[in-house]
Amino acid sequence: MAKSVQKKTKRDAAKSTGVSPMVIRRLPRYFRYLRELIRNGKLRISSGELSEMMHVTASQIRQDLNCFGGFGQQGYGYNVNYLYAKISELLGVGEGYHAIVIGMGNLGKALARNPMFEKRGVDIVGMFDISPAVIGEKVGDGVVLPLSELENFCLDHTVDIAVLTLPKEAIESVVERLIPLGITGLWNFTGKELDHLPPDMLVENVHIGDSLMTLCFEMRCREKGEKQ
Amino acid sequence: MAKSVQKKTKRDAAKSTGVSPMVIRRLPRYFRYLRELIRNGKLRISSGELSEMMHVTASQIRQDLNCFGGFGQQGYGYNVNYLYAKISELLGVGEGYHAIVIGMGNLGKALARNPMFEKRGVDIVGMFDISPAVIGEKVGDGVVLPLSELENFCLDHTVDIAVLTLPKEAIESVVERLIPLGITGLWNFTGKELDHLPPDMLVENVHIGDSLMTLCFEMRCREKGEKQ
Repeated sequence: MAKSVQKKTKRDAAKSTGVSPMVIRRLPRYFRYLRELIRNGKLRISSGELSEMMHVTASQIRQDLNCFGGFGQQGYGYNVNYLYAKISELLGVGEGYHAIVIGMGNLGKALARNPMFEKRGVDIVGMFDISPAVIGEKVGDGVVLPLSELENFCLDHTVDIAVLTLPKEAIESVVERLIPLGITGLWNFTGKELDHLPPDMLVENVHIGDSLMTLCFEMRCREKGEKQ
Repeated sequence: MAKSVQKKTKRDAAKSTGVSPMVIRRLPRYFRYLRELIRNGKLRISSGELSEMMHVTASQIRQDLNCFGGFGQQGYGYNVNYLYAKISELLGVGEGYHAIVIGMGNLGKALARNPMFEKRGVDIVGMFDISPAVIGEKVGDGVVLPLSELENFCLDHTVDIAVLTLPKEAIESVVERLIPLGITGLWNFTGKELDHLPPDMLVENVHIGDSLMTLCFEMRCREKGEKQ
């Protein structure tokens, strides 16, 4: 269910914004490069320069960026701040979502301390675990709460997103508790794909191991190529 | 450079295996689902059942799996063990790569303790940091070594992959040290893309934040849709 809901939403998104789902998937990467340019005080950039930096063809860049408004001007290039603002707006950065992290092991801690949330307009308002070893521990600006406090916490706070970094065995019972609390976005690191979710619950699954396999696959192909 | 090298390799890989790069990207997901089926004692599966489980159309599955050998038989379905073995072989699982982790903060620890390496045939042989607070600490089966030991360690051990979980400010100087040590695969979590690498160095960049942005984007689209 989760996956098909996402797909529907992406198609809807594409329809309402006029941007294809493939381009939408590529926008976070533009967002990162543009932020780097702004940090370095660069105000304009040509598609050629951006192409060299991002290792994407200049024509791909023109196609990606032109399809949601003509930002580029012949002989001038792109206005970096304007493009960054437009992409941020399209991606929903600065919408002010509130997130909680469930499972404060090493991964939960690494994520909770990561400035990526703040940079993307997401505020971590709570952290939960069941282990007495971490309950009460200060992580970043907050303190880890017992998971038994989840319902009370959500009565007092607005929570949009749950970051799931708990063991996969526990995920189904936790997600059942999240549904009536009005949380509608799950960022799922458990490796377990979620089925039978309500249609208004969106899930983004992160499978870090898939990327390790891709690296190993490329290494193996290169070795085979070298041996031939 | 890194990115273009990867692309070239993927194209070469596609040429030598006869499998398209898009299919290759999807294989780790099949690998995960098939492992789950084996764990549950399931010996055969039809494309229809796999389709329902994976939320992919049955025709997509037949297309993906048939393009590297006719595993499926009409009325019988796929032999799960055979398919798993074939995909594992194609992905290079069990090739016995050796990895080190550089940067033993929370993310480094979370990765080093994660069974995903073992499941994918990658052995973590060393862990390094510069902080006296973690040097000497036991993580999983090993002990964190000072980064100053890197060169000596690599003289005594075979190391293929470096997992980079150090602060992005330090990455360039560390990668310069890795090049002469014969390490040819970088799994890069720093968020900084690497340029000017030797052509035999492969990089897989992990940008976890991109996935958070995709989730926020979908949530925003849904809200806009609801308001209309």
